[in-house]
Amino acid sequence: MSKDASLRDALRVPHGPISVSGFDSGAKPLEPKSKRLEHDLDQMADLQERLWAESTGGGERRVLLVLQGMDTAGKGGVVKHAVGVFGPIGVEYSAFKKPTEEERAHDFLWRIRKRLPGPGMIGVFDRSHYEDVLVVRVHDLVPKAEWETRYDAINAFEQELVDGGTTVVKVFLHVSYDVQRERLLRRLARPDKHWKFNPSDIDERAHWDEYRAAYDAVLERTNTDAAPWYVVPADHKTYRNWAVAELLRETLVELDPRYPQPDLDVATLRERLAPPH
Amino acid sequence: MSKDASLRDALRVPHGPISVSGFDSGAKPLEPKSKRLEHDLDQMADLQERLWAESTGGGERRVLLVLQGMDTAGKGGVVKHAVGVFGPIGVEYSAFKKPTEEERAHDFLWRIRKRLPGPGMIGVFDRSHYEDVLVVRVHDLVPKAEWETRYDAINAFEQELVDGGTTVVKVFLHVSYDVQRERLLRRLARPDKHWKFNPSDIDERAHWDEYRAAYDAVLERTNTDAAPWYVVPADHKTYRNWAVAELLRETLVELDPRYPQPDLDVATLRERLAPPH
Repeated sequence: MSKDASLRDALRVPHGPISVSGFDSGAKPLEPKSKRLEHDLDQMADLQERLWAESTGGGERRVLLVLQGMDTAGKGGVVKHAVGVFGPIGVEYSAFKKPTEEERAHDFLWRIRKRLPGPGMIGVFDRSHYEDVLVVRVHDLVPKAEWETRYDAINAFEQELVDGGTTVVKVFLHVSYDVQRERLLRRLARPDKHWKFNPSDIDERAHWDEYRAAYDAVLERTNTDAAPWYVVPADHKTYRNWAVAELLRETLVELDPRYPQPDLDVATLRERLAPPH
Repeated sequence: MSKDASLRDALRVPHGPISVSGFDSGAKPLEPKSKRLEHDLDQMADLQERLWAESTGGGERRVLLVLQGMDTAGKGGVVKHAVGVFGPIGVEYSAFKKPTEEERAHDFLWRIRKRLPGPGMIGVFDRSHYEDVLVVRVHDLVPKAEWETRYDAINAFEQELVDGGTTVVKVFLHVSYDVQRERLLRRLARPDKHWKFNPSDIDERAHWDEYRAAYDAVLERTNTDAAPWYVVPADHKTYRNWAVAELLRETLVELDPRYPQPDLDVATLRERLAPPH
């Protein structure tokens, strides 16, 4: 990989009308030559620690990784293998499932706001506010007049996050219809994976084309410069995990967080530590 | 290490009056022969995943790791290296710092209850409700008549957690006065560690004996069969990290969580997946 090649540039969704089907879910852009596709764990830990340390000195910067994708696209795998390179202290993981009654009684961003990362943190959303223009749209869970307003609401919300110091990294894990089928069949073949299998996944699969259309709209209407979308080819698991980790690495390298330099009177402090017990 | 040797047995605090000073902070009980002191990451990930999976089938079991210790004892290092062996999905980390005004307006367990792990989760408390009988006692932050009642309140609280399916693993990271001094000096010598250095750490160090007495009381009065204390020698970082990971491993092995076995009609589901797009 050339030193200047950026995976963010390679996977960034272009502006304008989008058809997800036009992206190759089996591609491996900028794949490094090393077979294991592993990141330098020390570098990753250092970057994350610096982001956290910066916040203890008053820094406001933080990162929000938004993961979206169809069932079996690998959101869980990405969290385990790509987000897992960071220690537990600086990462906050949130899974957004079917909203509770209380959540439905509020604006769709209410439950999202409660889980936003604080300064210095890397927040990870496993599904997100985008479900409110995906499953909600596909199944007519609210009137069209309502979900139609949400694209603009999302853009305004994300602009607000960016203005407050959040770098938003939105990832669509792009898996093909056939690979989803293979993965669901594999789960069925392994009794220890049955707990992950929800027969309703097959019902959702029947709405594949409607989900594609809903994702096309998301990728066209919420792909702002403030909070752009990346399409990560997800048919190959190892590449997928590497790619998301790499998007985070590039993001942190660009942020270049610094350790605070408090004004310590080192000589006096050393002296105070001198006397033995 | 013999197959039957248990680190939990070796580090378990005995009942009765305790003097922390009687424990060797440089000891390495049951240290394995392998030099790197690394756990089998696949085994650890599998145990954690099974605990989480069990909860999706209605299981209520969960684990709460409570970490206490003086400054530089290594709470952060343990979280990074021992808790870090698990993926981000099943772990909830909470640091309890100086309480906010809102928190002080409530019972001391109020903020703790808000961070208890849900079913299937491993909760990690970096400091905890024990601060309310440690720093609070050493600095007379509330009247003695008040903190004196808290030992019983803590025992009742933890019994309630255990009754609800939580395995509580309470760890005192035991570091010596001299090793603390070395570690503070090392932080002073490294500008990139200055952000971790709080001059008030030295003030706290001046209260070393009072903290020892407060820990003695904790280890005597809250060392219940329901929620026992373990003293982990913490002068050696690698041993310390290995030991806490091992306490968690033994705990999970004993829990022996199982994947739920939902009653799937595999043949029909396979058939429904058959038709290509």
